[in-house]
Amino acid sequence: MPAPVQTIHVDTGHARYPIAIGAGLLTDRRWMTENVPGSALLIVSNTTVAPLYLERLLEALGERRIARCILPDGESHKTLQSASAVLDSLVHHKMHRDATLVALGGGVVGDVAGFAAACYQRGIGYVQAPTTLLAQVDSSVGGKTGVNHPGGKNLIGAFHQPLAVAADTDTLSSLPDRELRAGLAEVIKYGCIWDAALFDWLERNLANILARDPALLTQAIARSCEIKAQVVAQDERELNLRAILNFGHTFAHAIEAATGYSRYLHGEAVALGMQLAADFSARLGMIDKAVVQRLRELLKIAALPTEMPKIGAARLQELMQMDKKVLAGTIRFVLLERLGKAQIVGSYPEAALAGLLKDHFG
Amino acid sequence: MPAPVQTIHVDTGHARYPIAIGAGLLTDRRWMTENVPGSALLIVSNTTVAPLYLERLLEALGERRIARCILPDGESHKTLQSASAVLDSLVHHKMHRDATLVALGGGVVGDVAGFAAACYQRGIGYVQAPTTLLAQVDSSVGGKTGVNHPGGKNLIGAFHQPLAVAADTDTLSSLPDRELRAGLAEVIKYGCIWDAALFDWLERNLANILARDPALLTQAIARSCEIKAQVVAQDERELNLRAILNFGHTFAHAIEAATGYSRYLHGEAVALGMQLAADFSARLGMIDKAVVQRLRELLKIAALPTEMPKIGAARLQELMQMDKKVLAGTIRFVLLERLGKAQIVGSYPEAALAGLLKDHFG
Repeated sequence: MPAPVQTIHVDTGHARYPIAIGAGLLTDRRWMTENVPGSALLIVSNTTVAPLYLERLLEALGERRIARCILPDGESHKTLQSASAVLDSLVHHKMHRDATLVALGGGVVGDVAGFAAACYQRGIGYVQAPTTLLAQVDSSVGGKTGVNHPGGKNLIGAFHQPLAVAADTDTLSSLPDRELRAGLAEVIKYGCIWDAALFDWLERNLANILARDPALLTQAIARSCEIKAQVVAQDERELNLRAILNFGHTFAHAIEAATGYSRYLHGEAVALGMQLAADFSARLGMIDKAVVQRLRELLKIAALPTEMPKIGAARLQELMQMDKKVLAGTIRFVLLERLGKAQIVGSYPEAALAGLLKDHFG
Repeated sequence: MPAPVQTIHVDTGHARYPIAIGAGLLTDRRWMTENVPGSALLIVSNTTVAPLYLERLLEALGERRIARCILPDGESHKTLQSASAVLDSLVHHKMHRDATLVALGGGVVGDVAGFAAACYQRGIGYVQAPTTLLAQVDSSVGGKTGVNHPGGKNLIGAFHQPLAVAADTDTLSSLPDRELRAGLAEVIKYGCIWDAALFDWLERNLANILARDPALLTQAIARSCEIKAQVVAQDERELNLRAILNFGHTFAHAIEAATGYSRYLHGEAVALGMQLAADFSARLGMIDKAVVQRLRELLKIAALPTEMPKIGAARLQELMQMDKKVLAGTIRFVLLERLGKAQIVGSYPEAALAGLLKDHFG
């Protein structure tokens, strides 16, 4: 028996929308009719996902004027050029302000398509249909859209909330194991920063989640979305609280940059970054060493990387300094005050950071 | 004696900012210190305006880290490529989220720079320093930013309110007469749609405004900004009321497209479009023919075009159909229910529109 569809509601004050999580959503004509408005649609997808899921989605969307824009696959195509291609497609197909864009794919498709929707005619509606675990638990929720710049990740973008999110867990069946594990890094993150009970639950169930038990997967995604929805509702524009979602990410972005964005999937780099952030928290006396160890063990069960690459402490520090979250020169870190509660720390002994980096990167 | 600086306040609910209008603002160190925040600035200007006014602005901005990005001049450069060049410059100069962008120039510079500010790191602050009459009375106020697409004007953009606007009337001294007149078309527009007393005042004072009387110019700009601020405060995102600012513009955009965006300045096309909109209002029995005649006379005093180009009724209708304001196929027009009051009309006899176009365009 398939796991029932769960629905989480996001309410930012400006926007309210449902996130549906469950099996078969992409073929659910009723859900699509109720949640995808517009007589004209543009579906944005990529060359990997479109052959797998586009036809069933078209069927569910019913009789409308539907155009499509298929991007090349991969983070290297998360560029202004790709967003421009989506905009060209919207113009080419004479889409008006009341048209809706549907993003079918992983985080790159969702971020690029969402940014194009934000810019087209100063903003049209879009629906997220994420097909990777990472996109289902993180990037499709919360309205952050954007593209990379050669000078840095996500430097160009907009806040633009979707009209709805349909996370069809059936699509995870085609997801490579490595990408499933990378997505789990963000689920583990929610446990660390918000919900110790989720962390405990993951310790008990991670093996079965990796074996793709549908009910457990749905539960993990739903709880992740619930947490993200709560955080985004309190701070849509990342003025304060929302920054905790970046736990491990300042380190991760620098590691990704230092390794040319090719060695690690984003979630893998986040796994490394979370270990550094946890260790830093312990060094500053905020948490016990045992928490660092529990996190390391959980990441190991998920077969996520736990060994740091040999990139050098100096290079890492320099790259972190360029991260867009750096305000007026000081790097602020999301650290743990206990398992299940994060805190933003902007003041710490520089020697502690130097020691951390030296011990891990030499 | 120079005319005193006037300040209008815009309050959209989300954003509140001052528009200062008067002589010498670009050299007013105190105003710049109080209204341009940020320890790092990027000034965006163009090859025509920068040699004239950039140095004095730099002087007034005082001791900060200031970079510059000089775009080529002209509407043909209001493109995603230009916005991309501004974004490249922001990255290149390692600007963080707390940097401020300053747009020094006409409408193109303001729209491109404002759009880049909207997209950089999902939104940084910017200040408008408009140097043309059109930009001072219209495009620098209200937060509409964007660029053109080969498929249509302003198809790509964002709503992003500036932190402040400094309309230095001294900069109008270098403005060619033709551009001054084109700017006056929008001032006349405000009289038509909102303020019959302004229209009367223009009938009495237009000759002296064209002679660039500083006090009269300041008064015309201030009243225009006041009206625009009132409209934008009620409807920032153009869900209803704000559309009246497009009086004459549906016709104007089609005329500009039909003539390759080269024959008319935007304000000149608006002058033609307002006459068509007024005539259409009269044909529908909304206003007296005498109002159409008064508008025509006023535009003639401003030496704005009053003769329609020979482009054919069918072509014009087709181009209007593609305008981004067309909702679900019906062209909605901003018409006059009397001088000083506009109304949005979405239902009218098609024969009346056909007759109007045929009489004017053959």
